[in-house]
Amino acid sequence: MSPLCFSMESDFIAWLRDRLPPHPQLRLGPGDDAAILRLSDRAECVVTVDLLTDGVDFDLAAIDVLRAGRKALAVNLSDLAAMAAKPVAAVIALALPRQGGQQLAVELYEGLIPLAERYTTAIAGGDTNSWDGPLVISVTAIGEVTARGPLLRSGANPGDRIIVTGNFGGSILGKHFDFDPRVEEALLLNERYALHAGIDCSDGLSLDLSRIAAESGCGAAIDLARLPVSASAHKLAAAKVARRSAADSASRSDALQSALGDGEDFELILAVPRDDAQRMISEQPLAPLPLTDIGQFVAEPGLWQTTADGRRQPLPIRGYEHEFD
Amino acid sequence: MSPLCFSMESDFIAWLRDRLPPHPQLRLGPGDDAAILRLSDRAECVVTVDLLTDGVDFDLAAIDVLRAGRKALAVNLSDLAAMAAKPVAAVIALALPRQGGQQLAVELYEGLIPLAERYTTAIAGGDTNSWDGPLVISVTAIGEVTARGPLLRSGANPGDRIIVTGNFGGSILGKHFDFDPRVEEALLLNERYALHAGIDCSDGLSLDLSRIAAESGCGAAIDLARLPVSASAHKLAAAKVARRSAADSASRSDALQSALGDGEDFELILAVPRDDAQRMISEQPLAPLPLTDIGQFVAEPGLWQTTADGRRQPLPIRGYEHEFD
Repeated sequence: MSPLCFSMESDFIAWLRDRLPPHPQLRLGPGDDAAILRLSDRAECVVTVDLLTDGVDFDLAAIDVLRAGRKALAVNLSDLAAMAAKPVAAVIALALPRQGGQQLAVELYEGLIPLAERYTTAIAGGDTNSWDGPLVISVTAIGEVTARGPLLRSGANPGDRIIVTGNFGGSILGKHFDFDPRVEEALLLNERYALHAGIDCSDGLSLDLSRIAAESGCGAAIDLARLPVSASAHKLAAAKVARRSAADSASRSDALQSALGDGEDFELILAVPRDDAQRMISEQPLAPLPLTDIGQFVAEPGLWQTTADGRRQPLPIRGYEHEFD
Repeated sequence: MSPLCFSMESDFIAWLRDRLPPHPQLRLGPGDDAAILRLSDRAECVVTVDLLTDGVDFDLAAIDVLRAGRKALAVNLSDLAAMAAKPVAAVIALALPRQGGQQLAVELYEGLIPLAERYTTAIAGGDTNSWDGPLVISVTAIGEVTARGPLLRSGANPGDRIIVTGNFGGSILGKHFDFDPRVEEALLLNERYALHAGIDCSDGLSLDLSRIAAESGCGAAIDLARLPVSASAHKLAAAKVARRSAADSASRSDALQSALGDGEDFELILAVPRDDAQRMISEQPLAPLPLTDIGQFVAEPGLWQTTADGRRQPLPIRGYEHEFD
């Protein structure tokens, strides 16, 4: 990174104006009181915000700020994907530590801009502040719904299959920063198949699946044998077994728990009517990214596991919830 | 405030969903992966973000968090006003101190919701986090441009008059929290008169005026005798004089400096062609809020003061700029 020196926020904005790629829907970018976006006629506009803080969502003592910047945008793009919306723009608000803040800001943008370009997302504006606290990154992303309409959490029906993209568990080994938000995948699936509901898996497969079920007024039953468990989840589980005094056979179970509860997989969890689900699974339109049928939505509220003999047992919900004191 | 107790963010979202007033353009509010807004056909969409931190933008040891919450939305609405845009929605991202965070969040929203209602702004969504740091509030506001188009900083021409709403200086005595963003005023003026450029005064009249001039490729000359100096600025100046060993006659000058540089007035500074400016001043369509002609844009870049005998002298730019280390 070339050393840059801005004494004022206005100098930083001048750098940013020069650095940001143009975007066909961005009529006016950073530097005025607000940015101006051109949206498609009659489009519904989708808005999401995520705030990430040093020490909670990332640790600047351990990772490069480029990855934190990339992640701050990626989690928002993943939310747009979960709505089957096309990204249009993002605005970035920063609280920078006074010491070394400008270098952090530049690197953070350098981490974020390539992802914005790949997903044709205009960086429309921002607010850059200094303070005595750690780095805070707040990204708001704006998208457009396609003619197929938005994908909500609330549309699942009993009998719909549960279809997931990719593999789950063990994201802490790297995927939690370097994941690709499933934007193109969601748009393609929403275009070619009937989707009833969707969510991106940020807080844990079992927790996020239970959220779709709850919003849809039904339950969900997972066939655990079908769960696409990631290599990282197996790796974590093997390491856990190795640490135990007696090596036991719990590795498969540990990996499953990891897939069900780790979170930050940023894969899609979809409710798909049976016929479209069958077609989706046989066509595998996202290959090499797998689509897997892991069970079905059911009338009884709650989260269930379907055992080998077809019976249902309650499945504990695991995942990450923000706690309040 | 009634004592509420949420153990999880999901409980808080449930409270919020119940508490937030409905809005005709909000198709889907908090609780899904993103909010969905209905925009008017062909509307251009305007986006702005401001991040406020405890210790810099407000001090929770000295003020009620309701006022901080209100201000966080108000500064964004003021930015929309500066674009002559109609507010549609806002999303709120919070980093809450772990201790007492939920009570802070509730009161912050209670401070912000009445303002959102008054300006028909949907609270479309948010992100609520806990951490070991002080309170951070990031608000992103979305507006729609009217058929008259947006008001940019860059449209002023030499010869345009400088018209301002309200009075300037001394906002630290209370207006910096309790100001009314000039949303209706901007829409009315943009509807009835030709406006060439506009900005809201957040960082100081002289600094924000110089920004319009710089973006428009011209300069600005203020007739200091015409400056609408607020009662608060006079009060501050009088207190300053009283503190001096010998009471001198600098009070008028101190109040002027306050009006030129204090900032956080959140009044509009407009570039208006001469004929419309004359009409505006005689009609006073915002009465009892005054509109004042304080000078004109000029060909020579920079900021100038026009003396009683009509000569121009450079006027130092005073105001608040974020510094980087």
